[in-house]
Amino acid sequence: MSLPYKPSQGPISTGRYPQPIPTTNLVEDDDVPEFEPFEDAEGSEIQPRGPASGYAELYVVSVDMLQQTNKLNHYTSDYDIQNLVIRRGLEFFIRVTFNRELTQTDDYQLEFMIGQNPTANKGSMVVVTFNSRQGCAWAGRLVKSEGASLLLGVTPTAEAIVGRFRTYVAVVATGGMQRTKRDPSTDLYMLFNAWCPEDSVFLPDEQQRSEYILNDSGEIYQGSHEYVTRRPWMFGQFEAGVLEACIYILDVCRMPIFNRGDVIKLVRMASALVNSQDDNGVLVGNWSDDFSLGTPPTLWTGSVKILLEYAKTGNPICYAQCWVFAGVFNTFLRCLGIPARVITNFNSAHDNTGNLKTELIFRTDGTPDRRNTRDSIWNYHCWNEIFITRPDLPTNLWGWQVVDATPQETSDGSFRCGPASVAAIKDGLLCHPFDAGFCFAEVNSNVIFLKRDRYGTMTPFRVDKLHVGKLLCTKAVGSNQRIDITHEYKHQEGSAENDRTMQRAEEYGCRGDNPEIPDKQLNVTIMSHTDKVLLGQDINLVLVCQNLGDQTITMHSHLTASVVFYTGISSVDVKNEDFTVTVQPFQTEHVYLTTKAAEYLPHMGRQLCLHFTVTGQTPDQSVSVMKSINLQPPALTLTVSGQPQVSQEMVLTVSFTNPFNYPLYNVFLAMEGPGLMSFRTHGYSVIEALASITWLETFIPRLQGTRRLMAAMVCHNLPQVDGTTDIVIQP
Amino acid sequence: MSLPYKPSQGPISTGRYPQPIPTTNLVEDDDVPEFEPFEDAEGSEIQPRGPASGYAELYVVSVDMLQQTNKLNHYTSDYDIQNLVIRRGLEFFIRVTFNRELTQTDDYQLEFMIGQNPTANKGSMVVVTFNSRQGCAWAGRLVKSEGASLLLGVTPTAEAIVGRFRTYVAVVATGGMQRTKRDPSTDLYMLFNAWCPEDSVFLPDEQQRSEYILNDSGEIYQGSHEYVTRRPWMFGQFEAGVLEACIYILDVCRMPIFNRGDVIKLVRMASALVNSQDDNGVLVGNWSDDFSLGTPPTLWTGSVKILLEYAKTGNPICYAQCWVFAGVFNTFLRCLGIPARVITNFNSAHDNTGNLKTELIFRTDGTPDRRNTRDSIWNYHCWNEIFITRPDLPTNLWGWQVVDATPQETSDGSFRCGPASVAAIKDGLLCHPFDAGFCFAEVNSNVIFLKRDRYGTMTPFRVDKLHVGKLLCTKAVGSNQRIDITHEYKHQEGSAENDRTMQRAEEYGCRGDNPEIPDKQLNVTIMSHTDKVLLGQDINLVLVCQNLGDQTITMHSHLTASVVFYTGISSVDVKNEDFTVTVQPFQTEHVYLTTKAAEYLPHMGRQLCLHFTVTGQTPDQSVSVMKSINLQPPALTLTVSGQPQVSQEMVLTVSFTNPFNYPLYNVFLAMEGPGLMSFRTHGYSVIEALASITWLETFIPRLQGTRRLMAAMVCHNLPQVDGTTDIVIQP
Repeated sequence: MSLPYKPSQGPISTGRYPQPIPTTNLVEDDDVPEFEPFEDAEGSEIQPRGPASGYAELYVVSVDMLQQTNKLNHYTSDYDIQNLVIRRGLEFFIRVTFNRELTQTDDYQLEFMIGQNPTANKGSMVVVTFNSRQGCAWAGRLVKSEGASLLLGVTPTAEAIVGRFRTYVAVVATGGMQRTKRDPSTDLYMLFNAWCPEDSVFLPDEQQRSEYILNDSGEIYQGSHEYVTRRPWMFGQFEAGVLEACIYILDVCRMPIFNRGDVIKLVRMASALVNSQDDNGVLVGNWSDDFSLGTPPTLWTGSVKILLEYAKTGNPICYAQCWVFAGVFNTFLRCLGIPARVITNFNSAHDNTGNLKTELIFRTDGTPDRRNTRDSIWNYHCWNEIFITRPDLPTNLWGWQVVDATPQETSDGSFRCGPASVAAIKDGLLCHPFDAGFCFAEVNSNVIFLKRDRYGTMTPFRVDKLHVGKLLCTKAVGSNQRIDITHEYKHQEGSAENDRTMQRAEEYGCRGDNPEIPDKQLNVTIMSHTDKVLLGQDINLVLVCQNLGDQTITMHSHLTASVVFYTGISSVDVKNEDFTVTVQPFQTEHVYLTTKAAEYLPHMGRQLCLHFTVTGQTPDQSVSVMKSINLQPPALTLTVSGQPQVSQEMVLTVSFTNPFNYPLYNVFLAMEGPGLMSFRTHGYSVIEALASITWLETFIPRLQGTRRLMAAMVCHNLPQVDGTTDIVIQP
Repeated sequence: MSLPYKPSQGPISTGRYPQPIPTTNLVEDDDVPEFEPFEDAEGSEIQPRGPASGYAELYVVSVDMLQQTNKLNHYTSDYDIQNLVIRRGLEFFIRVTFNRELTQTDDYQLEFMIGQNPTANKGSMVVVTFNSRQGCAWAGRLVKSEGASLLLGVTPTAEAIVGRFRTYVAVVATGGMQRTKRDPSTDLYMLFNAWCPEDSVFLPDEQQRSEYILNDSGEIYQGSHEYVTRRPWMFGQFEAGVLEACIYILDVCRMPIFNRGDVIKLVRMASALVNSQDDNGVLVGNWSDDFSLGTPPTLWTGSVKILLEYAKTGNPICYAQCWVFAGVFNTFLRCLGIPARVITNFNSAHDNTGNLKTELIFRTDGTPDRRNTRDSIWNYHCWNEIFITRPDLPTNLWGWQVVDATPQETSDGSFRCGPASVAAIKDGLLCHPFDAGFCFAEVNSNVIFLKRDRYGTMTPFRVDKLHVGKLLCTKAVGSNQRIDITHEYKHQEGSAENDRTMQRAEEYGCRGDNPEIPDKQLNVTIMSHTDKVLLGQDINLVLVCQNLGDQTITMHSHLTASVVFYTGISSVDVKNEDFTVTVQPFQTEHVYLTTKAAEYLPHMGRQLCLHFTVTGQTPDQSVSVMKSINLQPPALTLTVSGQPQVSQEMVLTVSFTNPFNYPLYNVFLAMEGPGLMSFRTHGYSVIEALASITWLETFIPRLQGTRRLMAAMVCHNLPQVDGTTDIVIQP
């Protein structure tokens, strides 16, 4: 694969460094001389080389990287790549065949180099010796000598640089070292190693490693905490070109080669590069409803197409929303061997001053004052977690760390986030790098309701401490079950531990806000009959008004129903209605609020979420309650036929029936399955009312085991539609 | 002043935020309507305004910002600017004159706005009321009512946003609020306030405030720890256009207006913007010897010209080295009211893998292996300190914090550094943000000497734990004395506290390296007769070789003398010499090494530092010692004549005599004095051998008190030359 980005080779600033800092894996073919004379050779003239007494000059006939054996030992067989892929900290083997049997006086060494101007003391040039002569950090071992052929074992350190190394064999000849020619086929890819206890990404549990490193598909949760929907995502970290693309990303950010063995620095750098903000990274965010200049975020079924396209063109890919950023970042992390998973936080605070309050502002008439409301609460937000050691932090803060590739408003001036220790977030230890305070606010903000008077001044009338960070979840290990991990981020509300966390957070500058709110006479809540409403059904809500006092209360109320983006921003009001409720002393009244399908369907566009706000005013109290309803769209049906076996052709059928009595226009479908088939799309200009479509594609499985196929559909007047099926492929 | 940068006004990503985040102080003139109807007005039609019963409609005749009084109270009289400049947390006064005397029913408020779309709950719109009606955070007070004229007192909070606010007076009219027209002359600049105990930049000592906020000139130390030289620097924070330029810098980095009251976020952002790397910032670094496309760093006498030119053109200014970055950053900080000083660290480690070792590599023949040496030790490096509270850190880490605007190699992907607590660096508490580990390595690295063998493998032969961070100093408060602040960064070497610091640093991932070094028989040091050598004098060094054993030792030695940049990078070898020393058992030998002026003078170019390395090889020991000699250049003579009084013309004479017997070519001189004269330059194509030049300029003092004038000279074949003089200007 030829990559578009050509990093500059020239010095950055002469005089500041002895040489430019290498920042790319790409090098010219002739980076080191084939013959390098000893600098301390006797005399000023270099002595000509020649055969040692009685023997022919030693030279290398062939180098065999023993891919089959090595890849199996290193859990890298699934990578669809010509070169050897290994994990650091674990021995791998190379067979070197010379022109003749070696004698006592013959000497040779292996040399591994990465980046331009490799140097030994920065780990970018590694010399491995197999005798008493002192070598570098990687241990060498002569496993077996068979005539002129040697089986050599090499154990890279668990801190080795991650990326593409060039392999050389150097023979000590008269007056200098004679190296093999540069041969790209002997290049090897070095990954992080979760199986190695000395590696910073060590994960002790084998099932977890299978999930968090080796599983190439997964699920990302969306919707609301009451009605969680799942979106399958094809990570595809083993597909052809993906590993090269991930290393290309590091080259684009000009990350110094020397630092690429440090997982903290690497993920922090990469979290900035997955989004295109500021740095020409992989994906362009777009939270509008207009995706005409690119691919709608809901059409993507996985990361592969995105990464390959980016590496091919060098241009950011359009468009992404948070789950796309998280999905692609997860591919990057797993591909390089870092244990990673995707997390969804429901009711994620998105506060743009970096404190612990999210302020929603209302007019005196009770309607939301959108012009003056600057904060927002996302229905959900997705980020990633990685499992690593944090030598820069106390040991109790090691383990899962938040990293977030979605470009957020950031006061720190660049669009990246993390790694932030999940344990630190839970305990309010916000003094620790990186961005723990920001993540803490996403799950712990208070929502403050303010009334703005005619002169522009504001008064708080309600505080909701429980709304934000309502539920955090991720896919289970080894199954497609969803697991609740809220307790990993938050202590029980009201517990002593939780109080301590809030107090600590305040000490570390993350101040909450507890405005004084007058006591309430009227207690108002809003509920729905069911958490699951199909798109096209009517929505029935109940407003429950409980009078706690001994006076009759009359509340003048207003209902606003609006279509909202998942970022909590309203796009269009579906309904605005005034009504009055009268509640007798110590009684409870129920008000039934119905929104007909015909009222909301014409306004939904690509969105799936309706937001209901009821505000009310009694003589001495302001009331505001909110409820989000996520509608369930129709699904795609996927069926597979044929012999489920590696290299045998099979057929995938995707079918869909339009359940609505209106046509769907400009319909696009996409499908993919890692190890089965690459990303494919298909379009229909129209699907008539109540009509069906069927799309067939053939594919040839490359990998065995339980594998997943996914399809997604987008069109102008229907929200996201998808479907998935699992098949077991025999070897 | 018209500024070149036009920030985009459009939304960044629709759907992600309700409105774009404001990031600039520049706004259209008509940002708020002059008449704003009440949204809750009765009926759907806006009622026409009209006079209240019996009185004429109230309107504002004039608004007086009372500059004289306010500026004196707020210590801002020195700012050469048309607008009011105040410090937050302290009351200021405004006189508002209406068309008539006010009645009981009249109501009015002051409104201060900053940035686009100002909003009350983010502090970018502040409503100040003067009656029982609830206002915003800033307190309002009716000081005195004189007929139709009111004297109003306003106290901004100590957390107010820093920048340029627009002032409006709004009168409650029938059906809405009637505002004054936008009038740029009533705009005010809000600064941080070191005099206010509630402000995060509070500095209790008045003498320190005079120095670290109000002193507009200073000294930056250079040279070596044995021979410290001083370079005067004209900060000029009060000069015309400088305050606007500093705020323009924040606009260029698109720093959200909402965050500009937070000193930590603000300085971190600005530390990236002072250098042009990555972000089109103020200054372009250049550590070469070729400045033909810009101004040589040594010609700058202060920050003013640089900041004004940047704000005028929007293009980065060429060229800077570390003291220029530190000088300009210091101006920025003091100008906005943040206590700041410039620090010099002698023997500053510049390690590019972020660990605690700096590795110098030698060939087997003892000569420095520059190709393989990737680390460097700067002779000195300058950064800044700011005095602030750190609510995100334990209180014992508050106070002085390192911030560094010189673009460093940074693994964190962007060229900025700090704020890092000096106390945290001293105690090895490297878990705390920001960049404490990087700063710690700059003052604490071990220097490891390695010998690289013919096969490319390396063996350590010496460790120097004392070389790096030898001396840290800054200018004293209230005088031009230099003070040693090494103890603020480091515990006594060998003390228990120091051991604890190193241990902690290691726990936080900043690992040292203690290779095993064989015991030494021969103890070798290098010394100079004098620490002060004039440029043009011979350099006499003594090599002291002490034999600790009972065997005669012969050492084959090699002396390399090279011209080095202050970054420790060698440009050209002046001398290479082999010699042999024989030392009898338990004896000491002295070897005198003389370098003649004629040997080094032709090679110095613009550099002032010669670096001597002696390496030696005995049968069982490798020796390497180093010594830097900083040469003292001739000086400029500055004399002042005329009446030293504000607004009286005076004359500055700069004279220079070429002490060398060769001509100086392409000579440029610059001079400036804050409050006295702006930056001026003058050129001479040649100054003949032993010839003199004299340059006269007239100037008219603007500010009183002890003030400083500085001149600098650059030419192609002479290093930096400068001179300074202080005068006391009468009011």
